[in-house]
Amino acid sequence: MSKSLYVLKIGGKVLEDKATLQVVIQAFLALPGDKILVHGGGKQASILGQQLGIPPKMYQGRRITDEATLEIVTMVYAGLYNKQLVAQLQANGCNAIGLSGADGNTIKAHKRQVKEIDYGFAGDIDHVDAEGVDRLLNAGFTPVFCAITHNKQGQLLNTNADTIASTVAQSMAAFYSVNLLYCFEKEGVLLDPEDEQSVISHLNTSQYQSYCKTGVISGGMLPKLDNAFAALNAGVLSVRIAGPGNLQKGGTLLSV
Amino acid sequence: MSKSLYVLKIGGKVLEDKATLQVVIQAFLALPGDKILVHGGGKQASILGQQLGIPPKMYQGRRITDEATLEIVTMVYAGLYNKQLVAQLQANGCNAIGLSGADGNTIKAHKRQVKEIDYGFAGDIDHVDAEGVDRLLNAGFTPVFCAITHNKQGQLLNTNADTIASTVAQSMAAFYSVNLLYCFEKEGVLLDPEDEQSVISHLNTSQYQSYCKTGVISGGMLPKLDNAFAALNAGVLSVRIAGPGNLQKGGTLLSV
Repeated sequence: MSKSLYVLKIGGKVLEDKATLQVVIQAFLALPGDKILVHGGGKQASILGQQLGIPPKMYQGRRITDEATLEIVTMVYAGLYNKQLVAQLQANGCNAIGLSGADGNTIKAHKRQVKEIDYGFAGDIDHVDAEGVDRLLNAGFTPVFCAITHNKQGQLLNTNADTIASTVAQSMAAFYSVNLLYCFEKEGVLLDPEDEQSVISHLNTSQYQSYCKTGVISGGMLPKLDNAFAALNAGVLSVRIAGPGNLQKGGTLLSV
Repeated sequence: MSKSLYVLKIGGKVLEDKATLQVVIQAFLALPGDKILVHGGGKQASILGQQLGIPPKMYQGRRITDEATLEIVTMVYAGLYNKQLVAQLQANGCNAIGLSGADGNTIKAHKRQVKEIDYGFAGDIDHVDAEGVDRLLNAGFTPVFCAITHNKQGQLLNTNADTIASTVAQSMAAFYSVNLLYCFEKEGVLLDPEDEQSVISHLNTSQYQSYCKTGVISGGMLPKLDNAFAALNAGVLSVRIAGPGNLQKGGTLLSV
């Protein structure tokens, strides 16, 4: 039996609310064994962009990242939120170390190919240096990844945090029994988006495909769940999608 | 004879100019042995502040850091510049890892006491975890410190980059023969600030005190040189203050 590792991804809306964030930080600290935090920050990046006269441009829920927008997301994700989270964890006795994919070359990506849409400096992941991340864990550090990677040729890239969490979890499965947790503002995957009580407690691949066909699950949940099932199919032990209040046992537990 | 370590501090004005920055990065890469980069970014922080309607407030060359200003410097120093530098170094085969003082609790500071002026969230350094930094160096990483620290109680703090460089150099002198380099936009310490040819090639403590009394050296050079001599007096092997073009042999070499 390999060692246990939790990878927890927290979304931008959870980061926004200070009280909620404290709940999530305590839940993260309570996770047993080694752990990795992954965070977004898109909402604040959009606010800063608005303030600077660079309003966000989105396509199918993904940010179109021109040069000015790349500077904004780098400032918000790798600067503001990453360091605030690291400082909060350090205050709670957790030896956190903040990382973009450029730091230690932990996550190498390439600029997304232009197809129907040019996403600009958006990065698709090529490689996670699982051995490097493992060395940091073994040295007693708790990695905190923001949603910025690089192409190893000097270019920073804006990379979806859900995908980073999934890909890091998959890569670390070579060394650990990995449990992946997605924490967002809802209580789990909902049968009815308007009803917080309608959490689907268990979801397997065939149920997911069926819910997709009937339109029960749609919109922003689709890429999140695709990332989640990709992790399960690549050796991650468990994936759970839950709200801040019940990360370890609540929400929606996925199975293949 | 202990191992050699170079600590290079680069100023905000050097960071601003892309061509100059490339010269400095190549000079940094050419330094033999282990090395640490320390950077500021004050000029860009002031520009961003202006854009956001939060103009910089300075007192005796130091930034007064209210909460909004702390967010700005955290975004610019720990986000934008730190990650751009790390990505550039990675592109050149240097396994850089960006750090604030919160990351790995490498630099603990306290909020500066309010005396005649309230500097707000400005941090004065209590402790550099030299053993932790040494572990990173031994693991093959090249630390890149930005000018942000923390108080280990969840508060980030804006900390002068010259002081970080000096204090890190002093702390690392327990393990290494440390050479400290300050790279800024001038060619060295000048006898006449208007004449770039008037570089003082050697400067010892008594000469420095004499130049201070006669007013030859004044203004922003005083805290920089105080930091530099403090390092020499605390076991750092050499301190040099130079322009981007001749870091290893040019500029002003200090001695006690």
